[in-house]
Amino acid sequence: MEEKNCCIRTKHRSEKEMKDLTTRLSRIEGQVRGIKNMVEEERYCVDILNQVLAVQAALNSFNKELLANHIHTCVAEDIRTGNEGAIDELCETIKKIMK
Amino acid sequence: MEEKNCCIRTKHRSEKEMKDLTTRLSRIEGQVRGIKNMVEEERYCVDILNQVLAVQAALNSFNKELLANHIHTCVAEDIRTGNEGAIDELCETIKKIMK
Amino acid sequence: MEEKNCCIRTKHRSEKEMKDLTTRLSRIEGQVRGIKNMVEEERYCVDILNQVLAVQAALNSFNKELLANHIHTCVAEDIRTGNEGAIDELCETIKKIMK
Amino acid sequence: MEEKNCCIRTKHRSEKEMKDLTTRLSRIEGQVRGIKNMVEEERYCVDILNQVLAVQAALNSFNKELLANHIHTCVAEDIRTGNEGAIDELCETIKKIMK
Repeated sequence: MEEKNCCIRTKHRSEKEMKDLTTRLSRIEGQVRGIKNMVEEERYCVDILNQVLAVQAALNSFNKELLANHIHTCVAEDIRTGNEGAIDELCETIKKIMK
Repeated sequence: MEEKNCCIRTKHRSEKEMKDLTTRLSRIEGQVRGIKNMVEEERYCVDILNQVLAVQAALNSFNKELLANHIHTCVAEDIRTGNEGAIDELCETIKKIMK
Repeated sequence: MEEKNCCIRTKHRSEKEMKDLTTRLSRIEGQVRGIKNMVEEERYCVDILNQVLAVQAALNSFNKELLANHIHTCVAEDIRTGNEGAIDELCETIKKIMK
Repeated sequence: MEEKNCCIRTKHRSEKEMKDLTTRLSRIEGQVRGIKNMVEEERYCVDILNQVLAVQAALNSFNKELLANHIHTCVAEDIRTGNEGAIDELCETIKKIMK
């Protein structure tokens, strides 16, 4: 992690990784727009619900990927360089995910 | 539930309800676009993760609302008119939600 | 649902159903005891964690079964006899499950 | 982590930590037994369901605690000593938790 300025933290990712992440998000954005269309077309509740579950699964899969990359790069690097704060933040993040 | 044609099931909702649902979805769509921007701006993993968790919470809240309305209207009506299929479908939906 | 006394609500289940539910719970109780033994034997964190996940999956599966039975019997019956409170309680329960 | 023998992995915990973990598990075991009694006393579905949700929350809280300790001790130590396998296993575990 680098500090671009006082408060925004950044992380450089490979072009391939960034492309993969934004592609997934574009698809998810399209899915959400599709659900909005379903509501406007008065589609049946259960059919809308199932589409929302699909988006949640896609976001969950996105987060798994991002978190695994984060641990392999940022966290591992921070631990090696003695930055213990990274571990605390990781634990906080995992606790939020586990609710 | 009414059948608009052979395969698309529909449900009429009040203008207020439809407005509420589409407004939520527009906001969620904007949040997803915001996350895509974060990735393009090389933002830090944990900050992106937290935004994804916020979207998932918003979708979950959307589904709770939709499902409660569904049970109060479609399911209750179907049970009263002796359509047992509605109960089976509700149970299937809940099982999917509970994973 | 019947009221046994002022505050305890009951539901009669078939012998087979009750047997099935108590058998599952006995197995889960044994699994929890097994995890306690693992802790006492100083077993590795990840191995303990995996056992806890297995118990959570078993409890989730138990709840799915119980809730499906509940909807097919109590809720359907209450709706047919005009007890609208059953629907509200079902929605509350589902919201708790969805967190 | 130490290998006690060919296949059982162990981890030494402080007396206080082990006491805390086993106390939680004993309480959870008692809760599961209590749910079995509820089934035998023909208690109402929703009341049983709520107790199961309470046990799941307790197990989730147990797992959060265990995982945070694991990361602060085993994983941090493994990364410092260059054991990359620990990171992969952590990611696998988190993916299982996130389903």
